[in-house]
Amino acid sequence: MAERITPRSQDYAQWYVDVIRQAKLADYSPVRGCMVIRPNGYAIWEKMREVLDRMFKETGHQNAYFPLFIPKSFFSKEAEHVEGFAKECAIVTHSRLRLSADGKGVEPDPDSRLEEELIVRPTSETIIWDTYRNWIQSFRDLPVLINQWANVVRWEMRTRLFLRTMEFLWQEGHTAHATAEEAMEETLRILDIYRRFAEEYMAMPVWVGKKSESEKFAGAVETYTIEALMQDGRALQAGTSHFLGQNFARAFEVTFQDRDGQRKYVWATSWGVSTRLIGALVMTHSDDNGLVLPPRLAPTHIVIVPIWRKEEERVRVLEYGEALRRELAAAGWNVIFDTDDQHTPGWKFHEYEVQGVPVRLSVGPRDVQGEQVEVARRDTLQKTVVPRAGIVDHIGQLLEDIQRTLFERALAFRQAHTHRVETYEEFRQKIEEGGFILARWDGDPHIEARIKEETKATIRCIPLEPIEDPGPALISGRPVRHRVVFARAY
Amino acid sequence: MAERITPRSQDYAQWYVDVIRQAKLADYSPVRGCMVIRPNGYAIWEKMREVLDRMFKETGHQNAYFPLFIPKSFFSKEAEHVEGFAKECAIVTHSRLRLSADGKGVEPDPDSRLEEELIVRPTSETIIWDTYRNWIQSFRDLPVLINQWANVVRWEMRTRLFLRTMEFLWQEGHTAHATAEEAMEETLRILDIYRRFAEEYMAMPVWVGKKSESEKFAGAVETYTIEALMQDGRALQAGTSHFLGQNFARAFEVTFQDRDGQRKYVWATSWGVSTRLIGALVMTHSDDNGLVLPPRLAPTHIVIVPIWRKEEERVRVLEYGEALRRELAAAGWNVIFDTDDQHTPGWKFHEYEVQGVPVRLSVGPRDVQGEQVEVARRDTLQKTVVPRAGIVDHIGQLLEDIQRTLFERALAFRQAHTHRVETYEEFRQKIEEGGFILARWDGDPHIEARIKEETKATIRCIPLEPIEDPGPALISGRPVRHRVVFARAY
Repeated sequence: MAERITPRSQDYAQWYVDVIRQAKLADYSPVRGCMVIRPNGYAIWEKMREVLDRMFKETGHQNAYFPLFIPKSFFSKEAEHVEGFAKECAIVTHSRLRLSADGKGVEPDPDSRLEEELIVRPTSETIIWDTYRNWIQSFRDLPVLINQWANVVRWEMRTRLFLRTMEFLWQEGHTAHATAEEAMEETLRILDIYRRFAEEYMAMPVWVGKKSESEKFAGAVETYTIEALMQDGRALQAGTSHFLGQNFARAFEVTFQDRDGQRKYVWATSWGVSTRLIGALVMTHSDDNGLVLPPRLAPTHIVIVPIWRKEEERVRVLEYGEALRRELAAAGWNVIFDTDDQHTPGWKFHEYEVQGVPVRLSVGPRDVQGEQVEVARRDTLQKTVVPRAGIVDHIGQLLEDIQRTLFERALAFRQAHTHRVETYEEFRQKIEEGGFILARWDGDPHIEARIKEETKATIRCIPLEPIEDPGPALISGRPVRHRVVFARAY
Repeated sequence: MAERITPRSQDYAQWYVDVIRQAKLADYSPVRGCMVIRPNGYAIWEKMREVLDRMFKETGHQNAYFPLFIPKSFFSKEAEHVEGFAKECAIVTHSRLRLSADGKGVEPDPDSRLEEELIVRPTSETIIWDTYRNWIQSFRDLPVLINQWANVVRWEMRTRLFLRTMEFLWQEGHTAHATAEEAMEETLRILDIYRRFAEEYMAMPVWVGKKSESEKFAGAVETYTIEALMQDGRALQAGTSHFLGQNFARAFEVTFQDRDGQRKYVWATSWGVSTRLIGALVMTHSDDNGLVLPPRLAPTHIVIVPIWRKEEERVRVLEYGEALRRELAAAGWNVIFDTDDQHTPGWKFHEYEVQGVPVRLSVGPRDVQGEQVEVARRDTLQKTVVPRAGIVDHIGQLLEDIQRTLFERALAFRQAHTHRVETYEEFRQKIEEGGFILARWDGDPHIEARIKEETKATIRCIPLEPIEDPGPALISGRPVRHRVVFARAY
C-alpha cells in the first residue's frame, strides 16, 4: 500500500507535500529549487493551458516566443524593474566547458567568458519591448496582443513545490496599445478572464482587486490581482494583470505615429499565471485522503474498477465494464477502465482516490446481474448504486454537481474565514486565526508597512467592487469610505 | 508595398531569410543566435505540436517536464555524451547581480558564485535518467513512456533562423524498457511517426534509415533518422530516434527487478524533432513569391478578399463574403475574411501570397451577380471561377489536392535530384550538383571520413528498406550488397 498522507490538522505543510508526491504530481529534482513535473501534474497544466489559451485567442491574442536569455544591460533600462527582477537570478557567464586540470571533470573555459552576461528570463518585458520597437511604427500596427507560454527562472531561497520554485512554467501576455484607455481595458479584460478561470474551472472563489503601491509589480503603474484563500487560512496570489503605462515604451523607445501625425509613446500591459495554480488547486480542494480535482480540470473524469472472484464472473464483468467505458467515452469524458489484474480493487480504490479522479465506478457480478453501477464521488466520498440505464445523464449531472459543490464548499470556507475588524487590536487577534480580514486603511504606506512588520499580514487587494463601509481607518483613525482585504499570504 | 523577395536562383540563403521575414515567421533578436518566433511562425509550431502530441498520446506516451538546468557533473557520467553535448553550452555560474562599482550598471555578485555550475539543457537524457532511478524499481514500473515539450540551448557559432539557433523549441521523448527488443520497437515506432508526420502533414518525402557510427547521437547505440531534401539540393536531418541501449541506465544506475527476480539495467530510447521543421517546411515548398504551406499545417486555410468600388457594391459584397466565411468556417476550416479598408485588394493578394495561405477567394460585384467565387490556389498560383453553390465541397477537394500536389512536387524534385553513382570520380562530380547520391559504401569509417573531408558530403542514412544493388564500394572497390544515401547537409 501507499504511504500515509499526513493529516492537515497535524502538519499542513507536510500534508501538502504528501498529497503532491502521492498523487504523483511532482518531485524534487537534483537541482536545488527546481521540480520535476510528473505526468499527472503536467496533465493538469495541459488542461489549464488549453482553457486559458482558448480564452486568450477568443479575445484576439496570438502566441509567440521570445528568447530565454536577456542581455544584462536590458535590466538597467527600467529603473524599478531592475530592482524587482534582476537581483536574484540565473546568470550565464561562459559558453564552453573544458577538461579540468586533474582530467577528472569539466570546468568553464575562461576563454569562453561572455562579453556581456546573459540573464535567464525572470519575466520578459524587457526583451519583448526591445522587439516591439521594430514592430510598431504606426497606429495601424496597434494593438499588439501577444502571449507567450514559457519557462522562467527566479532564484528563490525558500522553495515549495508548485507554489514557489526556481524554474516555473507560465504564460505571460504583453500587449501594446495606442491609448491609456485601451491598455486599461485590456488589463481589466484579462483580469476578468483570470477570475472566470479561477471560479468556473478551478472552482476557486477569488477577490478581484488592485494592489497597493508597495505590492505592485516592478515597473507597473497599477497591478491588479486575483487572491484566493487556502485551507490553512493563508492567501495566495493566483494571477496578476499589470497596467504598465508608458514605462517600458519610454525605456525602450517604442513610439508610433498616431492618426494625428504625432509620434507618441505606446501604452502597455502585461499579465501572467503560472504552474503555481496547480498548488492553489491542491490547497483549495484536497483532503486528508489525497488530491481532489474539479471535473473541468481533471485529466481523467471517471475510473471504472471491475470486481470479480471467479473466472466466469471475470468475463461478464469485463464485458459489462467495457460497454460502460465505451458509452462514457463516447459522451466526451476521459475514462480509465482499470483491468490490470496485478492489483486488488481495494488498492485501486485507494490509488484513484489519492489521485483525485472525480468519479469512480465499480462493477461486480451483482451489478451485472442487477443492471446497476456503484458510483462514488471523490468530493464527498459518498457512494450510491444507480441503474445502468441512463448512466450517461447521471454522470453528466454528477460531474456538474461536483464542480458546483467544490466551488460552494470553497466559498463557504472563505466566508467562514473572512472577518471585518474595526480596530488594530482586533486585527492583531483575528489575523492569528488566518483568513481574510476586511479592514479600513487610509492609504498611508507607512501604516501598511507597520502592519506587515507587526503581523506579517499584507494588503492582498483593494477590491474592484468597493466594500463600502465608512468608518475610522486602522491605527490612524482617519475616516475612510471602504474596506480593503488583508491576509497573511504565500 | 512589401520589400522584394530575393529569387532563389540569385541567392538561395537570402531567399530563405527573405521568406521568413516577410511572411513574419521569425526575427533575429538582440541575443546573438536566438530568434523571436513571431505569431505566424509560432502558429505553425502549434499545429505541428498538436498533430505530433496526438500521435504520441495515441501510442501511450505522456508529457512531463524536467528542469532547465543540469548540474555540470551529470555530463561527466556518460563518457560519449559529455564530448557531444557539454562542450559548447550556456553555463550558469552566479545567482545574483549587484550594482557595479561605478554605480551605472550591474554585475554578477562574486559572493553568489555557485558551488557547482549549472548547464542550460542541450538535451535532457542525464537529468531524466537521474530521475528515472527513483521511479523505476520493478518490471511493473516499465515501460516509462514520457515526452517533454521544451526549449533547449546549444551554443552554436553559425546560426540560421529555425535551422540552427542557439535556443530552439522541441519535443524530446525518453522511454525506459525491460528488454532491448521493446526499446528497439519503440525506437522504430517513433521513427515511423516522424516519417508519417513528414510525409502526410508536411508533404515532405523523407529517407528513413540508420546513421553510420560517426553520425550517431552522442551516447546512442543506434541513431535512426528521417532525411529530407531542400530545394538547393542539400539534405536536412528532420528528426532522429535513438536506441540508447543500457548506456544511460549504467551511467545513472537505473536497475529494475525483473519477473525472474534478477536486478537488471533498464533499456532506453530518446527521440526528438524541433522548430527546425519549420525551416524544412519553408525550404521544401516555398517559392519566389513567398511562403507555401501544406493545408494540414496551415494556421489559416482560406482567406476571402472582398472587392468593391461604390458604396452600394460594398454592402452586397460584404454580405456575400460574410455568408461565404460562415459556411466555410462551419465546415471546420480557419478562414480570414479581410474586410480591412486601409488596404487595397492588390495589397492583400500580395500579403496572403507571401504568408502562404493555401486558398484565396475573392468576391466582387460580378461574383455576387453571377453567384460565383474566384478561387486562387497558392501552390500553383492558378485561378478559376467556380459556382457559389457547392463551394464547401469544392474547397475541401482543393485543399486535399494542394496537400497531394505539394507532396508529389517535392517527391518529383527529390527523384530528379537523386543519382546512383558507381565510382568515386562520378561521386565527386555529381555531388557538386546537389541532391542525394546513392552509392556503395563498405562500412569503413576512414573512407566515410575521407569522402566527407574531400566532398563535404556525409552518409545521411543507411535506408531501413535496403537499396539492394550489389557491386564494388566507393574507393575500396570491395563488393557490397547495398547502396547508402549521401548528401551535403544543413
